[in-house]
Amino acid sequence: MRRLYEIGGAEDSFRPSPYCWRTRMALAHKGLSFEAVPWRAVEKARITRSGGGTVPVLVEGDLWLGESWDISEYLEATYPESPFFDGPGDKAKARFLDHWITLTVHPVIFRAVALDQFPMLAREDQAYYLERTKRKFGQSLAEFCGDPDAAIAELKPLLQPLQSTLAEVDYLGGASPGYGDYIVFGALQWARVASPRRLYSADSALARWFENLLGAFDGFARAQPARAHWGNPAPK
Amino acid sequence: MRRLYEIGGAEDSFRPSPYCWRTRMALAHKGLSFEAVPWRAVEKARITRSGGGTVPVLVEGDLWLGESWDISEYLEATYPESPFFDGPGDKAKARFLDHWITLTVHPVIFRAVALDQFPMLAREDQAYYLERTKRKFGQSLAEFCGDPDAAIAELKPLLQPLQSTLAEVDYLGGASPGYGDYIVFGALQWARVASPRRLYSADSALARWFENLLGAFDGFARAQPARAHWGNPAPK
Repeated sequence: MRRLYEIGGAEDSFRPSPYCWRTRMALAHKGLSFEAVPWRAVEKARITRSGGGTVPVLVEGDLWLGESWDISEYLEATYPESPFFDGPGDKAKARFLDHWITLTVHPVIFRAVALDQFPMLAREDQAYYLERTKRKFGQSLAEFCGDPDAAIAELKPLLQPLQSTLAEVDYLGGASPGYGDYIVFGALQWARVASPRRLYSADSALARWFENLLGAFDGFARAQPARAHWGNPAPK
Repeated sequence: MRRLYEIGGAEDSFRPSPYCWRTRMALAHKGLSFEAVPWRAVEKARITRSGGGTVPVLVEGDLWLGESWDISEYLEATYPESPFFDGPGDKAKARFLDHWITLTVHPVIFRAVALDQFPMLAREDQAYYLERTKRKFGQSLAEFCGDPDAAIAELKPLLQPLQSTLAEVDYLGGASPGYGDYIVFGALQWARVASPRRLYSADSALARWFENLLGAFDGFARAQPARAHWGNPAPK
C-alpha cells in the first residue's frame, strides 16, 4: 500500500502544507491511490527512514522518499504515463517555478495566513512553531507576521507575472495541467485551507485557473474544506 | 533580405535593448542571418508598418513584425528546426519567464544601469527619455533611478530563484539553450552592454550560465562590447 505522510492539524483532516499539496496533486495526476497519513512537525522519529525531517514523505514498499521535487522526479520516472513535463526544458522551468514560489511567494503568503492557520494546528506543533520563530527570528509569530493586509498588498505585484501568463494560456502545462501547475497550486491551496482571507481578485485569471484545478481529478482538491474562502464557511 | 530594427546609441553599434537581444539570440539559434538596422526611439515613422512604435521589428519580405514574443512565435512556426520549446507546457512557462522578467526584473535593472547608459544614447533619444520620465513619473531620470547600489541590492533576492535553478541545470532549456534562456539573457546582456556595474557575483551559477551564452553561436553575443563589465574597458 502506498502511503503519504503529510502535515495534519488539531483535526487529522486539516491539510494546509503547500508542499504536500504538490505531491497530492502529482499522485492524482498519475492516477495513483494512496493512504494519507497525518503527521505533526514534532514527530521526526516517525519519518527517519526518509533521511529527512520534513513532509511530504512518500512510502512505496521499502522506499521512503522525502522532498516534493524528488518525489515528482521519482513518480515521473516510475509512472511515465501522463507525463508531468514536455521534456527537459519544461522540467528545468518547472524547477525555476519551484524555487521562485518557495523563495519569493511562500514567505509572503506565510505572513498573510499564518495567524489564521495557527489555531488549526495540533497543540504540540503550535508550541514547536512558536519556539522556532523565536529562535530563528527573535520574534513572536504575531510580530513576525505583522499586518496580514500588508502581506496581501505585497502579493499583488508578486503574482502579476502569473496573472499575465494565465490570461493567455489555460495552464502552465499548456492545454492541460502539469507539475509546474501543482507547484503554484500548492501555495494557493495552502491559503484557501488555512485562512478566510482573499489573496487575489475572484474574477482574475489566477482565480479561474485555481478553480479549474480545484475541479480536476473529480474535484479531489475541492473536497478539502476551505477556511471560509470565497465565501465558504469555516470548518468546525 | 531579413532585417532587424533595433535600438542603437550615439554610435550605431551600441545595442543595449534586452528585447532586441532576445530576438538576436533567437535568430542566431535558428541559424538565420539578418541585417541589423539601428533605430532610435524617436523614429516611430520608420516602423509604422509593424503596427507598433517599439523595436525589435523583424522584416522578412512584406512582413513587418514587432513584439519580441510574437517574433519568437513566428520564428518557431516558420523555422521549426532547432525548436525553442519542448512543447506547449515549456512555451507557457517561457511566457511566464517573459512576464516575470519584464514586470519584476527589468524595472530594477533599469534603476541600476540607466544612468550609466544615458550618455551612450543618441542625443535625440536622450531628450525623448528625459521628457518621458518627467511625464510618466514627475521625476528627473536621476531622481527616478535613485542609488544604483540600492537597486543592485534588491536584485540579489530577486535573482535567487534563477541562481538556485542554474546551480542544478545547464540551461532553462535543459541541456541546451531555448527561448526561455534568451529572455533572461536579454536582461543581463543589457546590463553588460550599458553599465560597468556588476549585478551578481562573478563566480555564481548565473554568471557561469551567462558566460556560456556569450560564447554560443561562435561568440555572437560576446562580440558586442561590454561596458567595462567583468573588467573589460568601456567603449570609446
